[in-house]
Parts: sequence; C-alpha cells; structure tokens
Amino acid sequence: MSKNSNSRAEFTARYFVESSVPIAKAAEVIAGEQSSGTFLALPGETDALKERARARVARVDSLPPVLEPSLKSAYAERKEPAKLYYRGEIDIAFPIDNVGANLPALLSTIAGNLFELGEITGLRLLDIDMPDDYARRFAGPAFGIDGTRRLAGVHARPLIGTIIKPSIGLLPDETARIVDDLCAADIDFIKDDELLADPAYASFDARLAAVMPVLRKHADRLGRMPMYAINISGTIDEMLRRHDQVLEAGGTCVMVCVNWVGFAGVEHVRRHAQLPIHGHRNGWGAFTRYPQLGFSFTAYQKLWRLAGVDHLHVNGVRSKFWEPDASVIDSARACLAPFAGVRPVMPVFSSGQWASQAPDLFGALRSVDLMHLAGGGIIGHPQGIAAGVASMREGWEAAVEGVDLNTYAKTHPALLAALSHFKAI
Amino acid sequence: MSKNSNSRAEFTARYFVESSVPIAKAAEVIAGEQSSGTFLALPGETDALKERARARVARVDSLPPVLEPSLKSAYAERKEPAKLYYRGEIDIAFPIDNVGANLPALLSTIAGNLFELGEITGLRLLDIDMPDDYARRFAGPAFGIDGTRRLAGVHARPLIGTIIKPSIGLLPDETARIVDDLCAADIDFIKDDELLADPAYASFDARLAAVMPVLRKHADRLGRMPMYAINISGTIDEMLRRHDQVLEAGGTCVMVCVNWVGFAGVEHVRRHAQLPIHGHRNGWGAFTRYPQLGFSFTAYQKLWRLAGVDHLHVNGVRSKFWEPDASVIDSARACLAPFAGVRPVMPVFSSGQWASQAPDLFGALRSVDLMHLAGGGIIGHPQGIAAGVASMREGWEAAVEGVDLNTYAKTHPALLAALSHFKAI
Repeated sequence: MSKNSNSRAEFTARYFVESSVPIAKAAEVIAGEQSSGTFLALPGETDALKERARARVARVDSLPPVLEPSLKSAYAERKEPAKLYYRGEIDIAFPIDNVGANLPALLSTIAGNLFELGEITGLRLLDIDMPDDYARRFAGPAFGIDGTRRLAGVHARPLIGTIIKPSIGLLPDETARIVDDLCAADIDFIKDDELLADPAYASFDARLAAVMPVLRKHADRLGRMPMYAINISGTIDEMLRRHDQVLEAGGTCVMVCVNWVGFAGVEHVRRHAQLPIHGHRNGWGAFTRYPQLGFSFTAYQKLWRLAGVDHLHVNGVRSKFWEPDASVIDSARACLAPFAGVRPVMPVFSSGQWASQAPDLFGALRSVDLMHLAGGGIIGHPQGIAAGVASMREGWEAAVEGVDLNTYAKTHPALLAALSHFKAI
Repeated sequence: MSKNSNSRAEFTARYFVESSVPIAKAAEVIAGEQSSGTFLALPGETDALKERARARVARVDSLPPVLEPSLKSAYAERKEPAKLYYRGEIDIAFPIDNVGANLPALLSTIAGNLFELGEITGLRLLDIDMPDDYARRFAGPAFGIDGTRRLAGVHARPLIGTIIKPSIGLLPDETARIVDDLCAADIDFIKDDELLADPAYASFDARLAAVMPVLRKHADRLGRMPMYAINISGTIDEMLRRHDQVLEAGGTCVMVCVNWVGFAGVEHVRRHAQLPIHGHRNGWGAFTRYPQLGFSFTAYQKLWRLAGVDHLHVNGVRSKFWEPDASVIDSARACLAPFAGVRPVMPVFSSGQWASQAPDLFGALRSVDLMHLAGGGIIGHPQGIAAGVASMREGWEAAVEGVDLNTYAKTHPALLAALSHFKAI
C-alpha cells in the first residue's frame, strides 16, 4: 500500500464518503482537489507533475446508496438534485514528498478542503497508514506506556487515578490538601481538570508551589512519586516555561488540551519536553459525534501519536458521556495497536468510573496498560479515599485473576463496600 | 451581559442545544460541567467557590422540540429513551478569572467536554461575547484591513488575487514563471495553495528564493509590492524562521493553516510576526457542516481574531463548495463586524469566482474591504491573465458605481470577454 508501481513513496488515508456523484467519481474529485488538480485537467498539470504530486485512488468499496443526503450541499442542489446519494469507503494514496514531516500540511492534505466539496454530502476520515520510515520523521511519544510506568513506579497493573474536583475554583492550598489526602491513599495518578490552567485566584505558579511539596513528601514515604498531570495549556512560551517548572520541582507529567493547543503547539512541547504528555481531547465530541462527518478515533489517535502525546483520553465504559461502550473499547484498542513503528499511547478511561468497570475493561482489552480514573468512585467511597483507591485495585486484581467481583469482595472489604454503595446509586 | 449582580467580570457563550432533558436543565448541566460542578452539588463546592468559579445560565430561549435526536447518545438511551428531544438557545456566562488570556483554556471552557455530555443530542457554539478589556489581553490582528492595504498599496477597492495552480507539484522555477505572469498582469495578491508548504521537490527555501526576485522586480515597476501569502505552516520553529525569511526578502504576508497549526501556534506566530497573517481555514467543513454540532462561523472568526489572524477565508458566492451563498455573505459580515474592540479580519472570497460575483458581494456587504480571489476567472480569461485581472477590477468598478455589468462591459472589453466566456461554461 505504501508504494505505487513507480516506487513513489506514499501514505494513505481511508474515508467514508457520501456524494451526489458515483463514488468512484467522488474519489477522483477528492484525489484531485487534495493534490495537483481538480477533476478536470488543469493547464500546467503535466505528466511529470502528476507523477510527482498527484494523489491516486487506491481503492473504492461501494456501499448501498441512500435517498437523502446526510449533509446538505447548495452546490449539489444547484447542479441537479440527486436522486441517489452514493456511499462508499475509499483509500487515497498521497505522495509523501508532497507533505514531508509537517503535521499541519499532513492535516491540510487528508482533512482539509475535501470536507467542503460540493459533491460531498458525507465525509469521515476513518484511518491513515504510512511507512515506518515516514512515521519516524515525526516526533512520536517520547515515553509511551513503558516510560510512564517507569516514572510512576507502577508495573503490571493499571495506573489508578483521579481528577481534582471541583474542576475549577479551588484555591492553591485547598488543592494541596486534596492532593495530600489522595497521596495518603496511595493513589498512582492525579490530574487537573481540563478547565483548570491558570485562573486568577489559583495561578499555575501558586498551585505548583502548593502541590509539589506535598507530592515530594509522599514520594519519600511511598518510594515512588505519585504522577500528577498538571495542566500546562497556554501560550507556547507559557507551556515550555511551565514544563520546566514542573520538571525542576520533581514532577513527572504535564497535561495539554491537544485540540486547542493544536498540532504545531503540541509537537513543539513534545520536542522540548522531558516529561510524558497527558493528552486531553476535550472538544473531541465536535469532531466525531455525527457519524457521516469528521474523524474516527482510529485516525485521530494516530495523528496525536505522530505529534508525540503519551496518554490520550477515551471516555469510560458506562460513563456520563454519549459514547457507546463498544466505541470506548475500540478507542482503547486503537491506542494500543501497532502503527508504523510509533509507540502506543496509554489510553485513559474516565467519567463515571469505579471498581465495577475493571472486569469489563480487562475482558475486552486483555491488557492492564491503561489509566483508570475515578472521581466519585474514589472520593465518594463510603469508607473514604483510601478505601476508594483500594477498591479500584481490588477490582483489577479480581479482573486479572478471572474472579467474579462479588466473590473477590467477600475477602476484600473496600471492594465489598464499593459494590454495595455504588450499585445502589 | 458582561457583569453579574456581584460585578464578577464574565464572558458569555451562546449555544444551540438539543437534549433529552428540558432545555433549562440542560443549560444547568452545561454550566456545571464547564465550571465548578456537576448538576449535583459536589463536596467542596462551597458558596465562596461558586461565587468565584461557577458559570451561570444567563438566558434560555426554548425552541420547538423534536421526536428524533440529531445525535445519538448511549447514555440518554440507557437512562430512559426520551419521548421528546428539547431544543433551545442558551447563554452561559463564565467568570473571566477562570480562564484569563489563554486561548486553549478558553476553548476548553466554551467548546470542551460539553459536546460529549450524555444528555446532549445536539450542541453548536453560536457566538461569544466579552468585555473590551478582556479581549485586549489577547493578541488580536496586528494589521487587519488597514495594515493589509498599506502593505499591498491597494486602497478603496478589493484586493484582486489568485491562487497558484496546480495546487502542488510545481517546481520552484515553474512557480516563479507563473508569479511573473501574474505580476505582469498587475495582480494585487497571490497565495499558495493550502496543500503547498515544504514539498521535497519544491522546498519552502527554494520557492522563496525563486519567487522573491520576481516580486521585487515588479514592485519596482508597479511602485507597490504585490502581496504574496506564502504558506509557512509547519513546526513552530519552522514558522518563525520562514516568517523571518519572508520579511528579510521583502515579502509582505505569510499564510497559516489555522485549524491544524492550532490556537497556541497561530498566536505564537502572531506575537512574533511583523507581517499580516493570511488565515486558511481548511478543515472547517468538519467543524460546521452538520447544523446541530460544532461551531458557527460567527463564533469561529471571533476566536481567530483573538488569536491574531488578519485575513480569513469565507468561500465564494456560487462556488464549488457546499455552502449556501447566504451563509458565505453572513460569514463575511461577521469578519467585518465589531467585536469587543478587536480589529476586523479581512474576508477572503475564493472558489469558482470571476467578475460576475462583484455585484453580488458589493450589494450584500456595501464594502470593498475584502479579497476576491479567482483561479480560472483570471488565468482562464480568453484574452489572457492581464485581461482576467482587468475584468475583475472592472466588475468591481461597475458594482460600486451601481452600473449593470452588461452595460459596463460595453465600454470595458476585458469584462465583456469574461461575461461571454464564463457565462457559457
């Protein structure tokens, strides 16, 4: 798939397409628009130029057409109202030489104007694929799962974690007290809420100054530094400075809101960073919730892997979010799957999580290479935070050992209390 | 709208919302999730904290409900399949102190996890508003319309421009020859295609070296430097270096693919730049084409104005893209409308444009503060490129003078040839 007959090095993008023209023609329109031509020949588009730069339709799989367009197009209506809207999945192969190791150019090529083409009434980027030697030219995750485990001192089980709540509004000393309680409960991982970056009443600097001594105190006791993903999202200069402050203070992780910092910013932080990057995908719903538009998570996580994110959120099973559980599991599998030699990204489960989801997750993934974050499931445990953390670990022990949760709970009181308390909610 | 009863400084976001719960409740869920709480009270969410940090529902306007959800939600289906899906428009007021002058945090607040809430079956950011003194803390456009006109030497009429075609694949000397032809035709503005950044066979450096002497030669002749928006999109370091190279070589504009460089990257370029930033919005279709999801252009252009983009694409009237003409006009109006003291951004019309659209645009906007880009409308003119440029100018002269195009064409042969040639296509 990575070479055509003339050995031109290529990468490919796979799309769902719905269009007012037959799907093979829509594929040619997309290949033209996203490379050297339009569907019609342009003056100046010589054979030599086409050989260098023209994208090619590598595959067309037709699907049954539909009678109503998923997305309206004034252009298609003006041309002639279509009686059918054609559907299919297509692969487009692009010359690597068109793009190089340039994330904004890669995105402009595979996810640019094609979303707006008049013939197109549905378009979703499903997947991307590329040769290893092309992928190697991007930053990629510097730490990934192994590096994260090494810094967190947690092996052979998931990192059990939580999010500081309330999400925003706490003063620095209030945050530090909560962190103290969480660390006293032997938690593995804590993160800021994505809303919390540098509020006027709890600046990044003040929070770091309040929190780090607490973390260091517990690190001495635990023999490992609890990993705190502190949200450094801001301007480029702020993010680099804040990363350096976290590193200097002995912290082991930084968090970045990837969609709104953007590809150039995240890659820049990655090239500079000496700590894992916890990627928060807030806003992702806007990119994916309409099934005939936007991005699949499979493609999305590959793009952020290229940029160098080490952890990426995937929602939770039975969460408070819109996403079906099967989709959440597929997302986690994608994070862990091989991709052109790029390190896997550690999937982060959160929202509505407690001990009960451990068997679901392990059953589906057969892996413990993940973060399992619980808010109420830890802080709301009837016997306190330490029992909340213990109940999550016990849930995972049971899952990995293949023991039913209720059975395991008979000899594990924290899990037992979680089961009776949270199931009733 | 910018202050509540306690004089807490706020900014507001307006949304279209569809949800499985009544719209006033959905508004409270959103205000909670995007600030200090959930819909239920959290331990630690004290009155003092709420006063500092809690978002408030400033307005709820109900719309007629629908029987089918626009977006599926496994959560809503699990809870109890709703018989009605409620719709409305809501204003949420957020404390400025939660966010500060931090674009990623602003986006995470107004366009973050709320898109994924289980109760939500439709959500679109319609607009934002903020006090002038808050907006002033962001970078904002450094040049805007006046600065662009000064550098381009074009006043009291639109900038007439084109895009180098084929989009990608030309060698540097081929590009330079096309630029020479365009400048010989007295064009005001040229831009790279968004696909073209730094291809292996036509690197940024080689293209700049080939093109700039041509531009300088014509600048000597014209008494003004034709504005060339050269695409600098890439890594942060590359973008700053490329900007400096363009500036050093006497260029007057740089182009950035805003969605894929991202907010932090674009603002960083803006803080560094001494040239206007031509904002290309490729990928925008994915953010906006489903009407019950994503972003309106009104909100989107305000966010990029805050980041400091000077020009922003709005598609064209009767273009090859999906967008209805009325929506294109609304977008241009939004770019030119006042917003919290932030400079307007110059709207850029392109795709399928030629002289005929001038009366439509002027009639709707009553403004010449725009760029009007034509590909085939200039390069495909039957009498050549110079006549193509002349026909666009003549179209605008007729529009501004209120003369019918066909009448004006009687004494303007370039326009006459355009009318007979392009109308037949």
